[in-house]
Amino acid sequence: MKMRLILLFLVCFSPISFAKIPPRLFPSSLDDQLSSKGKLSYETNYFTQILDHFNYNNPQTFQQRYLLNDKYWGGSKNNAPIFVYTGNEGNIEWFTQNTGFMFEIAPHFNALLVFIEHRFYGKSIPYGGDKTIAYSNKTTLGYLSSTQALADYATLIIDLKNNLTAIDSPVVVFGGSYGGMLAAWFRLKYPHVTIGALASSAPILNFGNITSPYSFNNIITQDFKGESENCYKVIKGSWKQIEDMAKTKGGLEKLRKSFRICKNYISQGALENWLYTAFVYTAMTDYPTPSNFLNPLPAYPVKQMCKAIDDPKSGKDTFEKIYGAANIYYNYTGNATCFNLNDHSDPHGLAGWTWQACTEMVMPTDGNNKESIFPPSKWDYNERAQFCKSNFGVEPRPNWVTTEFGGYNIERVLKRFGSNIIFFNGLRDPWSGAGVLKDISKSIVAIVAKEGAHHVDLRWSSKEDPKWLKQVREREVNIISNWLSQYYQSLNEIY
Amino acid sequence: MKMRLILLFLVCFSPISFAKIPPRLFPSSLDDQLSSKGKLSYETNYFTQILDHFNYNNPQTFQQRYLLNDKYWGGSKNNAPIFVYTGNEGNIEWFTQNTGFMFEIAPHFNALLVFIEHRFYGKSIPYGGDKTIAYSNKTTLGYLSSTQALADYATLIIDLKNNLTAIDSPVVVFGGSYGGMLAAWFRLKYPHVTIGALASSAPILNFGNITSPYSFNNIITQDFKGESENCYKVIKGSWKQIEDMAKTKGGLEKLRKSFRICKNYISQGALENWLYTAFVYTAMTDYPTPSNFLNPLPAYPVKQMCKAIDDPKSGKDTFEKIYGAANIYYNYTGNATCFNLNDHSDPHGLAGWTWQACTEMVMPTDGNNKESIFPPSKWDYNERAQFCKSNFGVEPRPNWVTTEFGGYNIERVLKRFGSNIIFFNGLRDPWSGAGVLKDISKSIVAIVAKEGAHHVDLRWSSKEDPKWLKQVREREVNIISNWLSQYYQSLNEIY
Repeated sequence: MKMRLILLFLVCFSPISFAKIPPRLFPSSLDDQLSSKGKLSYETNYFTQILDHFNYNNPQTFQQRYLLNDKYWGGSKNNAPIFVYTGNEGNIEWFTQNTGFMFEIAPHFNALLVFIEHRFYGKSIPYGGDKTIAYSNKTTLGYLSSTQALADYATLIIDLKNNLTAIDSPVVVFGGSYGGMLAAWFRLKYPHVTIGALASSAPILNFGNITSPYSFNNIITQDFKGESENCYKVIKGSWKQIEDMAKTKGGLEKLRKSFRICKNYISQGALENWLYTAFVYTAMTDYPTPSNFLNPLPAYPVKQMCKAIDDPKSGKDTFEKIYGAANIYYNYTGNATCFNLNDHSDPHGLAGWTWQACTEMVMPTDGNNKESIFPPSKWDYNERAQFCKSNFGVEPRPNWVTTEFGGYNIERVLKRFGSNIIFFNGLRDPWSGAGVLKDISKSIVAIVAKEGAHHVDLRWSSKEDPKWLKQVREREVNIISNWLSQYYQSLNEIY
Repeated sequence: MKMRLILLFLVCFSPISFAKIPPRLFPSSLDDQLSSKGKLSYETNYFTQILDHFNYNNPQTFQQRYLLNDKYWGGSKNNAPIFVYTGNEGNIEWFTQNTGFMFEIAPHFNALLVFIEHRFYGKSIPYGGDKTIAYSNKTTLGYLSSTQALADYATLIIDLKNNLTAIDSPVVVFGGSYGGMLAAWFRLKYPHVTIGALASSAPILNFGNITSPYSFNNIITQDFKGESENCYKVIKGSWKQIEDMAKTKGGLEKLRKSFRICKNYISQGALENWLYTAFVYTAMTDYPTPSNFLNPLPAYPVKQMCKAIDDPKSGKDTFEKIYGAANIYYNYTGNATCFNLNDHSDPHGLAGWTWQACTEMVMPTDGNNKESIFPPSKWDYNERAQFCKSNFGVEPRPNWVTTEFGGYNIERVLKRFGSNIIFFNGLRDPWSGAGVLKDISKSIVAIVAKEGAHHVDLRWSSKEDPKWLKQVREREVNIISNWLSQYYQSLNEIY
């Protein structure tokens, strides 16, 4: 069995070995008790954005959504700062709801909060907002790219500052995951628009051959192995057993029952994909407190999964053990009666990522070595290319991101170039292997949390937060304060 | 009379008041005796370049020309440097022939020389090299933009380095005028591709309202006034006299004779444009030694023009004086028997600039205050917009360049961001008013030559070069040496 997934930040599916079924993502509504404590509020605005910034043969525009909170803003007269979230591959409301950090630090900084939606996601759909047209083919999807998105952010921010007569208000950008990549790149490409970037869990080195394609799954392996050797072994061994069982007569039906799969659909690939998804996203969101980002999850869900697997009650039945683990991810609320492998719902509007993964976001992540918790496999660019060709009729440009944004020898390149970027990474996050994990210069710094998961620093805080997390956030606040002080000082310097 | 020109670096014409006649540019063949001393040599190559880097809906490519000289290269094993000229708005051979500096310093640095042609110019024409198609309308011309050009350079350089297995060879970029703007922007946007930029006479601040629209003509005024007050007064007074004469019966015919205009065509506007062109480009190329960049010219041609004007032999006849001055610019070789105002030839292939000036390169330069050597006028964006609409059916994006590349408060923005850029400016150059004239940081430095003209530092050297020019070049060489030393040192550092 080969496991081949276009591994996306938030949505994953298998183009090759498995059936093309995205995992079910439960509708994620923010749990106020867990997090926002009433601080979450924003108004919705739209900006008339240029569809093609780089050519002049297309006068089309589209309505780009951005969310605004001016409750804490110190105003333009005081040159109070503007904190901008550079939206990622989904509905901006969802990212906003899950970026409590910005709401929590805004009062301290008297900051205006702006969350800009990425083009082609949420309600920021070109072609009159008609997603059917926008997503219909490569001609219309052609305008969905990171460089266009960055130019959107620059254009919108400059216009907003003009409208607020806040020309001298410093802008700090924030982002997590792909949004973190965009935040870092935005600081590098648009230093005249932003004074600094907090790039959380931004795997900007997951391109070309900068990072090993085994890194991603190695970290997941380590996450589970670190909890319990038995847990790792059971998961690692389960794939062969599933394969063997599927081959037997009535085996699929047995698997269906073991994993409480709904009757409408099952295949070996879909089941494997469903399980793989659970392990990957549990590792990514292995937060120290209960969460509700992708699915409702308990604190330290990897530990909980391993607990289920190691539970003596489940005896020697591997499927029962694995089911127990999957149940943590898919059914923590306990409401599900069966799991639908044929669920194509996309509550956060993430579908455009497949296009991005087929053009510029070619991130080799699905290598599995002998020790991997998943079956051994190699990263194979040609499989991606084939999938993209058949799906969209496009050939990826695997070298484009490193051409446009760099990545190779990043320490050498940025040691004496650029400034004011924080790269946060949690080492439990499988993406962290492709993050910047060492300080590059005095002001391009890495904050690494051994026990951290995917952009854990950007979450709403909780009383239960461990000390290390509080310290990470404190350090981020201090660094941003320094950027601002330096900026305000420079305002008084005469050139 | 109003003087309204879309003032281009190298080609100028009047869309509004004057007839749309580009000035005659003599075919400029390099005069070996003056300059190259046999050092000029290169081979011609073509690279298959992506037409649209930023969207994915167009798989087209085109053949991009680049010139190569590896005579002095120390080779990839030694990580010997690569010096790249970022081509401007014309035939790359012409810029190469006029950038002797790179050939002259290459032996010292053991540098590979690469001169890359800008898309849509020279032989680097998309649509199968068919200029008629490429220039036919806004759809095909749409791909002619500075951002696409920079992405071309990045793509080509990375590919070239791969082919030469010279991954660790440092790249330094050079450019003059628009090419200098591109060199500076390239260092800012692609620090992973180049370690530093020599941006000569790059008016990167001639956008929005960063630089006064009167600056350009003020400098020309000062150039002539500095030579002789009388010279300035005669030129300044001549416009009214031409206007008055043109109004009289037979006046145009008189003007034709006074200025030795060929019989095929004359109009007041075309004549004024022809004269304006002579003054502007003589000021720009007011070099200390004879030159042959635009037209063959003596050393210090502004001084020569004023000599002609101040010459007692020409008595009180203003037209005769002005003719004498124009003759320096248009007929220094003495071969012309009459001047053809209807000459649309474009020997250096500069026509694409009109498109660029109608889209992103909106550079306000044609304000003239009361003291101007030209008739008073205001910069009026709407006139440009009207012209562009009627000529190409496009609306310019006057804010795009400052959005994409910055410019406002550049000292503040770059004080702690970026490194390794030399901004050279000669203060006699009318473009220098929009250049970076003060050091921004330790490694983003301004070299200012009071007596210098447009990218004089990049010319072939001559025994007759003044001391200040030799010193400018020495300083440039020293700074580039430092960049390289620092780079080689960083190669040995372990990360």
